[in-house]
Amino acid sequence: MIKEVGIRKYISQKKSETVDWVAEERPLTIVLNDVEIVTLLCSPSHLDELAVGYVLGEGLMHKGEELEVNLDEKRGIASISTAAANLVNLQAWGKRYVTSGCGKGTSFFQLNDVRQHDSVSILMKVKVEEIFSAMNILQRKSQVFLKTGGVHSAALQIPGSFIFREDVGRHNAVDKLFGYYVLNKLDSREKILYLSGRISSEIIGKARRMGVPVIVSRSAPTSLAIQLAEEVGITLVGFTRGNKANVYTHYTRIE
Amino acid sequence: MIKEVGIRKYISQKKSETVDWVAEERPLTIVLNDVEIVTLLCSPSHLDELAVGYVLGEGLMHKGEELEVNLDEKRGIASISTAAANLVNLQAWGKRYVTSGCGKGTSFFQLNDVRQHDSVSILMKVKVEEIFSAMNILQRKSQVFLKTGGVHSAALQIPGSFIFREDVGRHNAVDKLFGYYVLNKLDSREKILYLSGRISSEIIGKARRMGVPVIVSRSAPTSLAIQLAEEVGITLVGFTRGNKANVYTHYTRIE
Repeated sequence: MIKEVGIRKYISQKKSETVDWVAEERPLTIVLNDVEIVTLLCSPSHLDELAVGYVLGEGLMHKGEELEVNLDEKRGIASISTAAANLVNLQAWGKRYVTSGCGKGTSFFQLNDVRQHDSVSILMKVKVEEIFSAMNILQRKSQVFLKTGGVHSAALQIPGSFIFREDVGRHNAVDKLFGYYVLNKLDSREKILYLSGRISSEIIGKARRMGVPVIVSRSAPTSLAIQLAEEVGITLVGFTRGNKANVYTHYTRIE
Repeated sequence: MIKEVGIRKYISQKKSETVDWVAEERPLTIVLNDVEIVTLLCSPSHLDELAVGYVLGEGLMHKGEELEVNLDEKRGIASISTAAANLVNLQAWGKRYVTSGCGKGTSFFQLNDVRQHDSVSILMKVKVEEIFSAMNILQRKSQVFLKTGGVHSAALQIPGSFIFREDVGRHNAVDKLFGYYVLNKLDSREKILYLSGRISSEIIGKARRMGVPVIVSRSAPTSLAIQLAEEVGITLVGFTRGNKANVYTHYTRIE
């Protein structure tokens, strides 16, 4: 996840040669039932989760079905075999919705598709102090960020677990969590997604597919993210720093 | 670019209802010679530049040729007509390289393609104080960021001009600069690209297509960005904050 590089450091005009750490970035090609889906640039960890989370998050595979992942780390290829491939979406592959995260994500679902999923838990309640303390943990866990400043972190909190992932890609970190959740056959309606990075509309889409009722970020949401979270029933909490937080939608889950 | 929303604010357990500003995010569909290329989610400003910069940055159009852009802001469609479309790349449309910015960008060039372009100016020199002061200007110019915390900023410095753009998408801001540069028929080998956000490999690809010899960011580069910048002859400066900066590649252009 981390590489050492030689750099020249300037402090005002004074220069010195030194060594620095940077976040590693590598290509991963995802293959679903022998169809080459995409090549992502990502942080080289938890690549099986990333592959599974990506195809689920993009609606290319149905949730809760058997699957097998083969990871060839050397060649950077993750191959998924499953009888649960969503042939409709796979065939509509050409029609992509590119998103604003970086500016460009690929999301095979349209916004309308996101709106049509099952409802998320309405009854879930979270104490605001829990949110403050989980965000605090997220920040302290981020060793790669502390060393390189070059990655995003994300965590999925379900009763009894706090799963943490980092990636050079904001979406990849979320995809890894989705993959972990499915590969470990976890099942909970009460889950919270914590993020270091900004929330744009496609993150809401992914969270919706994961069945997440509450998203908490250290950063800002966009207008479209707020609108979509409002519509699909997700509580969106932004700018969570220290003991402060802004709740943008569905206030009732926060106590 | 900015929308007002009602929020609930928490400071510890104390809650209050208030109004906040968020960065607007809207879809833009780009059409090139009647072929629907992509739908981006972006900040609704300079959309003609974004469309042109996108198709150039992705290698779907040749630089320096005549083109016409029609913008239908209401429907969110930018249509480009040109005799300079790159038919080879347009036909290879299916083969996409998805990048790590957010996690997923689409980049139609492969890394090898980036390596094959003309060389960038080797002779260009920049004083490190100039870099500090330009980065300072970039930060002060970012009004949308100051209000919303939800956008990235980028600027292109060429002798006599400092063009500034903001977008919810890190790449979109760069694409807008590329579009401005081409639509205004500017021509300079001496240019510097300033960025607020992290530098992953695909930003190097876009800069290479723009013929930019020096990239300066407030944030971190990834390992692949450094490797690619080294290979294609770009000077990469990261963590430029106050009077400090790290130079990762091609030190000789910095004085």
